[in-house]
Formats: sequence, structure tokens, C-alpha cells
Amino acid sequence: MEGEKRENQNQAAEEEDQIVNPWEVAAKDGGKIDYDKLIDKFGCQRLDQTLIDRVHRLTGRPPHVFLRRGVFFAHRDFNEILDAYEKGKKFYLYTGRGPSSEALHIGHLVPFMFTKYLQDVFRVPLVIQLTDDEKCMWKNLTVEESQRLARENAKDIIACGFDITRTFIFSDFDYVGGAFYKNMVKVAKCVTLNKVQGIFGFSGEDHIGKISFPPVQAVPSFPSSFPHLFAGKDDLRCLIPCAIDQDPYFRMTRDAAPRIGYHKPSLIESTFFPALQGETGKMSASDPNSAIYVTDSAKVIKSKINKYAFSGGQDSVEKHRQLGANLEVDISVKYLNFFLEDDAELEHIKTEYAAGRMLTGEVKGRLGSVLSEIVERHRAARASVTDEVVDAFMAVRPLPNMFD
Amino acid sequence: MEGEKRENQNQAAEEEDQIVNPWEVAAKDGGKIDYDKLIDKFGCQRLDQTLIDRVHRLTGRPPHVFLRRGVFFAHRDFNEILDAYEKGKKFYLYTGRGPSSEALHIGHLVPFMFTKYLQDVFRVPLVIQLTDDEKCMWKNLTVEESQRLARENAKDIIACGFDITRTFIFSDFDYVGGAFYKNMVKVAKCVTLNKVQGIFGFSGEDHIGKISFPPVQAVPSFPSSFPHLFAGKDDLRCLIPCAIDQDPYFRMTRDAAPRIGYHKPSLIESTFFPALQGETGKMSASDPNSAIYVTDSAKVIKSKINKYAFSGGQDSVEKHRQLGANLEVDISVKYLNFFLEDDAELEHIKTEYAAGRMLTGEVKGRLGSVLSEIVERHRAARASVTDEVVDAFMAVRPLPNMFD
Repeated sequence: MEGEKRENQNQAAEEEDQIVNPWEVAAKDGGKIDYDKLIDKFGCQRLDQTLIDRVHRLTGRPPHVFLRRGVFFAHRDFNEILDAYEKGKKFYLYTGRGPSSEALHIGHLVPFMFTKYLQDVFRVPLVIQLTDDEKCMWKNLTVEESQRLARENAKDIIACGFDITRTFIFSDFDYVGGAFYKNMVKVAKCVTLNKVQGIFGFSGEDHIGKISFPPVQAVPSFPSSFPHLFAGKDDLRCLIPCAIDQDPYFRMTRDAAPRIGYHKPSLIESTFFPALQGETGKMSASDPNSAIYVTDSAKVIKSKINKYAFSGGQDSVEKHRQLGANLEVDISVKYLNFFLEDDAELEHIKTEYAAGRMLTGEVKGRLGSVLSEIVERHRAARASVTDEVVDAFMAVRPLPNMFD
Repeated sequence: MEGEKRENQNQAAEEEDQIVNPWEVAAKDGGKIDYDKLIDKFGCQRLDQTLIDRVHRLTGRPPHVFLRRGVFFAHRDFNEILDAYEKGKKFYLYTGRGPSSEALHIGHLVPFMFTKYLQDVFRVPLVIQLTDDEKCMWKNLTVEESQRLARENAKDIIACGFDITRTFIFSDFDYVGGAFYKNMVKVAKCVTLNKVQGIFGFSGEDHIGKISFPPVQAVPSFPSSFPHLFAGKDDLRCLIPCAIDQDPYFRMTRDAAPRIGYHKPSLIESTFFPALQGETGKMSASDPNSAIYVTDSAKVIKSKINKYAFSGGQDSVEKHRQLGANLEVDISVKYLNFFLEDDAELEHIKTEYAAGRMLTGEVKGRLGSVLSEIVERHRAARASVTDEVVDAFMAVRPLPNMFD
């Protein structure tokens, strides 16, 4: 709570420091993102081992690799979600995507893989917002192109394995209106222009679509925005898994929520998936060489990793055998940390690589096979997602057994 | 066109001068609104006799009293609407109301009476926007109360006699979404924050709902916002009858229109209906003694006129017989100018009153009977507007014979 008040104070400090907002992620002076500073600045809480153990206990399932490895590292009131769950109260999940590119990269899969895990272990409904309106406004895409990308991206999202009996995917261009629009107006009334300029850095030269947008991303946090799903369940809590660059939206939302009679949404927040070139920001879909796409072939994946993945190894084999690799900056190790499920194998690689007994080439080779397997599995799953399946997920319909 | 560019230059001058925007109308130093200055500042065109004669010729019907008497006194590209109409091309009408009060006053009827005339003589479809979202945000009403007022006001509007086969009435809270929302986003992309702050005077302390709203009032100007009415008719022109305080919205809209591939809407703009106390602003529904309500009884109307209607007559009967009345400031004469249909009788009253042969009491008496008749007719018409009739006007439905 008090952390939320700190936001304005820290605004000035941020300018000279790292920049993290929904549209820009840049570390200070080409260094690494300082996640501790971010937690402090944003005023969220660290997701500690106690909380992870509690998830383990409550779900009776081993915590997801993204929890074990600190990928999801911060939260807001996640403990309250668990409190409620422990008492037999359900909640719902909300996540989303801004459809700005044709193909997703593997970093884009992170929140969806994790959300699928949460849906599976807690057996709760999920709403997925495709902010085609946002991308139309920020990326200067046409309405039609934004909507086309939203549908293409929906196929990738569905391919992550969501349960159609508990999942509603919507495009803002299609779904904004009615109860959703009423909540947008309620939120907008609580947020001054000064406030959004402070949170998001909008200037007078920005178009008003940008200033209008934050309430659109805010209101899926409230069950009344989905009368076909949650009519009469205004008390249902919402948990939002997202990368931490989305936190500004939900700080704003949490500030407005009690003023309009709603619960504050809870958050569980991840680090960024780093670019191949190094951990100064997040992988960008607009620089093809910075990212592994879910459409890349095994050959392309192998070549990109060999060519671009920043190595913490030494310049020569001799030196490497002697000094070992610097794991702190090695991108292949970072990627394996996200995607190699076997804890023992990961530990082995890290030990051997750090000691110089394993070479960069070997680590990259293992990463290539891990990523190729994920991408191949994704490609197969996506191939079976027809337009009819997309329509079915996006139909405005009740989900009668969503809590069973 | 060049007039539209003048707006920013004149912004500073306005501050010291009269204030006219959608939420405030105030003359300079308690004087009268200077409409010539307003035309110059806003950059619209005077509605001259040539244009009125042209309406007469094209419709084969005598021009409405509001045209003959200069109530509708300004326009933007109304001539282009007439050009198109002369060539057999149809257009549609768009007007609206912000539902901020339970009962309308007679000044509120002015745009609707005139719009009904336009609908009748041109035989064209009409969309009426009820900006319940706007009033919820500006007047701090709840969503529910704003929607209730919207329906109550819809009954008064329907009572003006609109043709249900050509008229679609909509509440923003109900109708924003889909094609309408897509156009909102397109407009919002064309308007910078600086621009809306210049046009509407928003400050950093204003909430972002205000900044988001102008595109909502803009997009009924575009036929594609109403796919159930105008699908495949993207080329249809729009004519907006309104009071001139709404001009800022449509300057903004006309600026955006060509950039998103749409026609600029045309406007036909009225003066304000003055308060009983005098012509320094517009009649306000929030000061009950400044206005005649459509719910006032004949007795109340008579008493309000006698008590409050500012008189241009002299202090004593002797002086009045000698000097006569000052028609320039006399509110009863102004009101008769709006609502006494008989040109000869109005001329007679003005001559006799100015010469001192008619007393203020007599003029007020005649006004009382004119207004009571209008209000009584309105009340009878409104009584027959059931909830089912409101639902029928507000149903999202095609209007298959709207141009016949």
C-alpha cells in the first residue's frame, strides 16, 4: 500500500535510471535491469520461498519451473488470493497480449505457459485480452491489420494448451462496450491527466487515444466487465500473471478499484525474457535477430543461438578451461533457466560451465535442442488451431463449469 | 477551412472575452453573447438569406421559423449538403443530448424541433446520441442514474414527433463498441493531447474520462459507426443541427475526418436560448428560476414569466408610453421570436411594444399563452411515449425505408 504512494517520488529518479514501462524497457547505461530497484520503485512485493512453498502445499503439485527459478519474482497481494483459495473461494485469471507482430517469439510464451499452469493447478477461469486497439494506436497499424494480428496471435496462445471450458479470449475492438465500457468510464473518472502522465510518461504531443487506453487494460480486472461469465459474482478476486513492465497499468487500476467498489486485482509478475544479445532489456519482436520465433526452424534456431547468443565464456578454449564462464551474463544459461525443466541437469550444466569444463558451444548445443523441441511442439499444436477453434475461444458465452 | 486554423490564435483572446464551450457559456462582463465574434472565432459561416431561400426552393416548404428568425444562424458546409441533395443524393442527420436533468426546459426543445423539421422536409434518417457517459463523467452521476435520465430524456425527445421509421436513438453506455469503438480509436489517433486541451480547456487535474470523450461525440458523424443503418453507404454525408457551443467537438471531428477517409460532417448551428433573467448565457436546467420546464403548469409558466422575464419596458407606464420598450434586451420578445409562429403578429407586437403602445404585461401575457400551449402539447405527446416506444426507437435495427 505505502509502496504505491512512493511511485511519484521515484518518478524523477527513474528518468536518470533504468526505464521500464509497457512500451520501453531499457537498463541503465547498457547494463542489466535491476529488478530489486524495480520492486522498490513500483512498490510491489518480492515473491519469496515461503509463498512458493505455500503454492506447492495448496495445489499439491510441484511449483512451476518459472516459480522455482525466480522468473516470476514479484507480486501484489498474491498471498490474499491464496488466503481466499485456502478458504475455498475461487478467483479468476486475467492476462493479455498486444498483437503487434505476426509471429510470437519464445519470450512471449512465458506468461502464457505460466498462466496455463495456474489455470491447471487452481482450476479457475481465465480471460485473455488482445489489445488490438492499443497496437493500432501505438504501432500505427490499421484497425483491420490489428484485428488480423489479434486472431493470428490467438492461435499461438490457444496452442499453449488452455482449457476451452474455462477460457475466454477477446479482442478489444470486438468486445469493448456495454458493461465493459461502463467500467472503463468508472475507472477513467478516478484518474487525472497528471496521474497518467506521471505513470506512463505521456506528453502533450501524444494523441488522446494513448490517454484513453489505460482504462481498457484496467477493467478486465473486475468481474463485472464480463457479465456472461461472472454475473452476480462481483466479489470474485482477480489474479494477473504478467511481466513487470505491465505493473504501471495495475498500480493505476488498484488505486481506482476501492473507489468504485471493487477488489484490487492481485498480480504475479515476471522478469523479462532477455534478447539474444544480452540482458539489457526484453526480447523484441521487431528485431528478428534478437529473438527466437515460434516459427523458426531447428536450423535457424541453432544458427541464431550460435551467432547471437551472448556468451559468458572466455575468448579462447585455454582461457576458458582456466577461468570458466561468467554465468551472470551468459544468455544460453539464462534461456536454459527458463526452459530446461530438469533442475539437476541445469545445475550440472551451470557447475561444469562455470568451472570451464563445459564449453559455450556445448551449452548452446543443449539450448538449441531444448528450444527446438519447444518450438516444434508449439508448431504442431498451433497447426491444429483452426479458425473455428479461435471463434470458439472468442465467443461471448457462459462457461458453466469453469470452477469445477 | 482557413477559419479552422484561426482557432488557436484566438484561444488567448477568448480567455479575456466571452466563454463558449460545451460546458460553459458566459458573455463578456455580463453583457450579451456576441455571435458575430463567435462565427469569426470558430471559423464557421453565417447562414444567409440566399441559403434560406435555397432551402425554401429545394424543399418546396416555407423555411422553419428558426431559420426565418435567425435562431439557426451559422453553418459549416451546409451548402454542400444542399448541393448533394439537389443532385438527388441523400444525407443523414445527427443530433444529441447530454442527459443531465430529469426534465427538459423549453430551450432544450429548440434543436429537436428544428431537427424534426429537417427530417420531415428532406425525408432523411436521423441518429440521436444520448451522452450518458459524458454526464456520468462531468456531473458525477452514477452510471445507473445517467442511463435512467437518458431514457427519461428520450421520452421528451420522442415527444417532439420524430418518425420511428427513420430515427435511431442510442445511449453511449449501451451502444459504444464494435464499429463505433473502431471509429473512436481512429479519431483519437488524429488528436493530440495539446489539441484537445486547446479546444476544450482541459487541465492536468481533469480526469482522463474527459479527455477520452470527444471521440465519442465525434464518430456519429461517420456513417460507418452505424453498420445496422448505413452498411455500404460510407459516402453518405452527415448534417448536424446543434447549438453553437457544440462547435468545438465538430471542428475537431472535421479536422480528423479526411485523415481517416471520411467526409467532414456539415453543421447548422443555433444561438442559445436565453435565461429568463437576460441574454448573458444559455438557459440552465440547474437554476429552476432561469428556465421554463416542459413539466411546468400554465400557472407556473405565467408566474415565472411575470416574476423573472427581463423586461425592456420602462419603469412607469407614463415613461413607457413616452419612450417605448427596448426590444434588444426584452426576454419576452426574444422568446416570442423563437416560439410565436405568426410572423405578422410578432411584427405587430414588436412595433407596438417599441412604440410604447403595448405594455410589458401584455407581451408577457401573450408569451404565457404561447409557451403554455407548447408545453401542454408536449406533455400530451410525452404521456403517450411508453417504455415500449422508447425501446422501439432505441432498438439496434435496420431502417429499411429511411430514405423514402
